[in-house]
Amino acid sequence: MSDLTLYLAPGTCAMAVRIALVEAGAPHRLKLVDFSVAEQRSPAYLAINPKGRVPALVTERGVLTETPALLLYVAQRFPAVGLAPLDDPFLLARMQEVNSFLASTVHVSHAHGRRGSRWADDEQAIAAMQAKMPQNMRDGFAEIEHHYLAGPWVLGDRFSLADIYLYVVASWLKSDGVAIDEFPKVAAHTARMLARPAVQQALII
Amino acid sequence: MSDLTLYLAPGTCAMAVRIALVEAGAPHRLKLVDFSVAEQRSPAYLAINPKGRVPALVTERGVLTETPALLLYVAQRFPAVGLAPLDDPFLLARMQEVNSFLASTVHVSHAHGRRGSRWADDEQAIAAMQAKMPQNMRDGFAEIEHHYLAGPWVLGDRFSLADIYLYVVASWLKSDGVAIDEFPKVAAHTARMLARPAVQQALII
Ligand SMILES: N[C@@H](CCC(=O)N[C@@H](CS)C(=O)NCC(=O)O)C(=O)O
Ligand SMILES: N[C@@H](CCC(=O)N[C@@H](CS)C(=O)NCC(=O)O)C(=O)O
Repeated sequence: MSDLTLYLAPGTCAMAVRIALVEAGAPHRLKLVDFSVAEQRSPAYLAINPKGRVPALVTERGVLTETPALLLYVAQRFPAVGLAPLDDPFLLARMQEVNSFLASTVHVSHAHGRRGSRWADDEQAIAAMQAKMPQNMRDGFAEIEHHYLAGPWVLGDRFSLADIYLYVVASWLKSDGVAIDEFPKVAAHTARMLARPAVQQALII
Repeated sequence: MSDLTLYLAPGTCAMAVRIALVEAGAPHRLKLVDFSVAEQRSPAYLAINPKGRVPALVTERGVLTETPALLLYVAQRFPAVGLAPLDDPFLLARMQEVNSFLASTVHVSHAHGRRGSRWADDEQAIAAMQAKMPQNMRDGFAEIEHHYLAGPWVLGDRFSLADIYLYVVASWLKSDGVAIDEFPKVAAHTARMLARPAVQQALII
């Protein structure tokens, strides 16, 4: 048995954890955090996640945060589903490499388009970050297209958490001003993800 | 048996992987990447890691990158040493949460001090990022001090990879213009790390 509550907002990286939970067949509750009223910075939410971000996952033993950590947690809690190659150190490291790259480089590039005030106070600096963001997204996805997508899945024949996370980050490209068709393998990967019943179900929140 | 070669540069996040290898008693070779001549962007190194960064770990099965992924790989390859709570999904997720936070938030904050040109082309914007960097490092370490360091180690009594990575990121505070003494638990943690023979040995490269 499990008792899990996911705090999330639509369209955010937290959707990756939601998809992983549905793929795993894991019973869970959802709590929507309303960014339009800055609920992520409300005292009630900061008591859940003092960093003021989604995702946060409330478990029987405490609250966990950070997308790559939550994804691996879901795979380890529901190992029969095989969302991660837990027994193969090399393959697991490759999956974690992709997840870590998505979190520390590609997600960070994306954030410079709308959350530049995290890294500079000056309006012109924020505009300069916005201007460079699409090129950084292109560079990140070129890396994925050429080095991280053997196909059909990130790990080749084996579906994994990296596919879920990649799909969510790729869904940001359009609003970042980058056409996904610049990256044919990524575009085909997104189509493959959207054909999965668990993904379709997970998108309904 | 293992055949591992770590590409690194002194003072960088790659030092965390070096320390983990020494803590694990793992035989490995070191290859220094000379940042002073931009060797990380040389064709020879880009053939190892097309992202042009350290660390990169050459294994029997291929090259792996991204600090949090390499750390977990070392723990899984040398499980007897117990560098990660591999069999406890919650504790492992907490460790990964800290490593992921260090990689995607604290390391990224630090990088805005010296590598602002990644995110903006304009000189004034780069200066504005530099100006905000110390405060972002303070915010990140306040989070660690208050929420991620039960003590003596990140996971309480249990030493883990998160301690290694935290130590390396904390070693950047001084050059970032932040006194480590603002964070007494972090300062004590660094002292504890420097007392470990494996850490002392790993620093000699
Ligand atoms: N490193 C964190 C980043 C989490 C994050 O930045 N989440 C965004 C949504 S994608 C958020 O909550 N933003 C709200 C804000 O910045 O106020 C992770 O990978 O989970
Ligand atoms: N997300 C990567 C970041 C690696 C990274 O940025 N490494 C820095 C050193 S700490 C580097 O190689 N910088 C060289 C450059 O930017 O040219 C990781 O966690 O390993």
